[in-house]
Amino acid sequence: MSGIRCVALSGGVGGAKLALGLYKAVDPSELLIVANTGDDFEHLGLRICPDIDTVTYTLGDLANQELGWGRRDESWAFMDTLGTLGGETWFNLGDRDLALHVERTRRLQAGETLSAVTADIAQRFGIAAAIAPMADRDVRTIVETPDGPLAFQHYFVRDRCEPTVTGFRFDGAIDARPSAALEAAFAGNGPELVVICPSNPFISIDPILAVPGVRALLEACGAPVIAVSPIVGGQAIKGPTAKMMGELGMDATAQGVARHYAGLIDGFVLDTVDAAAADAIMADGPDVHVTNTVMKSLDDRVSLARGIVTFSEQLKQS
Amino acid sequence: MSGIRCVALSGGVGGAKLALGLYKAVDPSELLIVANTGDDFEHLGLRICPDIDTVTYTLGDLANQELGWGRRDESWAFMDTLGTLGGETWFNLGDRDLALHVERTRRLQAGETLSAVTADIAQRFGIAAAIAPMADRDVRTIVETPDGPLAFQHYFVRDRCEPTVTGFRFDGAIDARPSAALEAAFAGNGPELVVICPSNPFISIDPILAVPGVRALLEACGAPVIAVSPIVGGQAIKGPTAKMMGELGMDATAQGVARHYAGLIDGFVLDTVDAAAADAIMADGPDVHVTNTVMKSLDDRVSLARGIVTFSEQLKQS
Repeated sequence: MSGIRCVALSGGVGGAKLALGLYKAVDPSELLIVANTGDDFEHLGLRICPDIDTVTYTLGDLANQELGWGRRDESWAFMDTLGTLGGETWFNLGDRDLALHVERTRRLQAGETLSAVTADIAQRFGIAAAIAPMADRDVRTIVETPDGPLAFQHYFVRDRCEPTVTGFRFDGAIDARPSAALEAAFAGNGPELVVICPSNPFISIDPILAVPGVRALLEACGAPVIAVSPIVGGQAIKGPTAKMMGELGMDATAQGVARHYAGLIDGFVLDTVDAAAADAIMADGPDVHVTNTVMKSLDDRVSLARGIVTFSEQLKQS
Repeated sequence: MSGIRCVALSGGVGGAKLALGLYKAVDPSELLIVANTGDDFEHLGLRICPDIDTVTYTLGDLANQELGWGRRDESWAFMDTLGTLGGETWFNLGDRDLALHVERTRRLQAGETLSAVTADIAQRFGIAAAIAPMADRDVRTIVETPDGPLAFQHYFVRDRCEPTVTGFRFDGAIDARPSAALEAAFAGNGPELVVICPSNPFISIDPILAVPGVRALLEACGAPVIAVSPIVGGQAIKGPTAKMMGELGMDATAQGVARHYAGLIDGFVLDTVDAAAADAIMADGPDVHVTNTVMKSLDDRVSLARGIVTFSEQLKQS
């Protein structure tokens, strides 16, 4: 286990997989996972934080492997009855998952910060790493489409990513500031490694970078900033990344992702199937590490994380 | 089945038993159950209406017979997880029950009245009778004790009715008015029978009577107002009625209950074990009907309801 001080920026499922790898590969007490909150929303009067929760459930060994979201050992009596009552059922909430949303909402309404609630819940689930929202103020990702703007979860869940994307807005970002844990991780000695997880660049990572000050913290920290490609062989492992890149007029390739992070990243992790693109990406600036990035097993996650740590040490020596 | 127009005032379990008897004994489309809302409260950010829900679950054949509260076929994954998260677990909420609270809270926050939500939920559960709150404005029963006032559910559930009672307040009652369904039932021809169910007089029926105008509606309607004793042989079938009567310096007897309703009731239904008290109660004013009031089976409920209807017809002829 490496004692490296590590900050990872993560969205939901794909990012959480690598977050878990890092959790096993480095000293967890030196690890901070910063979760996107741009896809948070209010639903049924509850504050839902999909990415924070996916990271929390994944690191707490509570994630539902079959569904790819939510908790394992889940039951659905609440949703079943909500349907009988004519309530909104397009966003599934399991009975156990619901407890998290109800308790978080209650605590936020009582005046606690999202950071405080997130940290406490992670601790109660026995997670030794720190998990923090990117910001405590609300930031809301809006998906621009030819038919007008869509609230993120309406685009993502209700409309199943079917609308064509023309751009994104991060409402409220301008008034947000990095969460205390995020700022603290860059104070003093700062991190020795910053990882941009293989999450969707537009809707998982860009909202984090849209919080004023976050990009500057990454640029100024002196530690290698390493992004892992969420695009492998021109396809997203999960989710609409490739579809979005096409709709935005970008090449749906790993190189396209690397260019999206141009100026920010020192290293880029490329899947072996895309090894031929390594030289072209390096010509754009970042160093490249080629490895297996498709994380099917826990071993895959830990191996990828260890490879990133080694890559970061090479970058510091170069 | 009698086509009598009937209004019943009810608290929770005991009242709901007779409400179900009436539901089976009279034309349900002519039956209105008015539920106490004095023990409603906000919990975990949700609006909980224990008496409305007990009546609804009972008439919808959804009540949990073993527990005596909540729904049947219930699961507890939510509460279990809430405990893990350090949330408040003194008030049990089942997974299915929770859907009702979440959906009602959402609809109230969206501006619907409690009356509208209550009526719609009853309809969705297939209930042919009308169920209405006593009022749409919040009324909150406060239990006065030597150690100060207690919010009702803190007294009732959290403190298990252990504190000594010195009196009651119904906060907000002064600003409330009868719900639209309650007022409508007394407009035009008005009801042909008003039943005060065998609920706790102090904390289930008095809050309803504390809504300005309700007592006057009962007094002026011309129909027999019949109360069923919740005290049988000096004991309450369920709950703290007898304990409260003792603490308030009253005789914990059926006659004590009848006197509590003096001036309001035309008839009083007394259990056979208390038959000896009939003459004394009649000397106070109301006519008395002696019958089995302990409702163990559905047949018991229907029989009691039918007896009340017959009693009301006798009262009209006398």
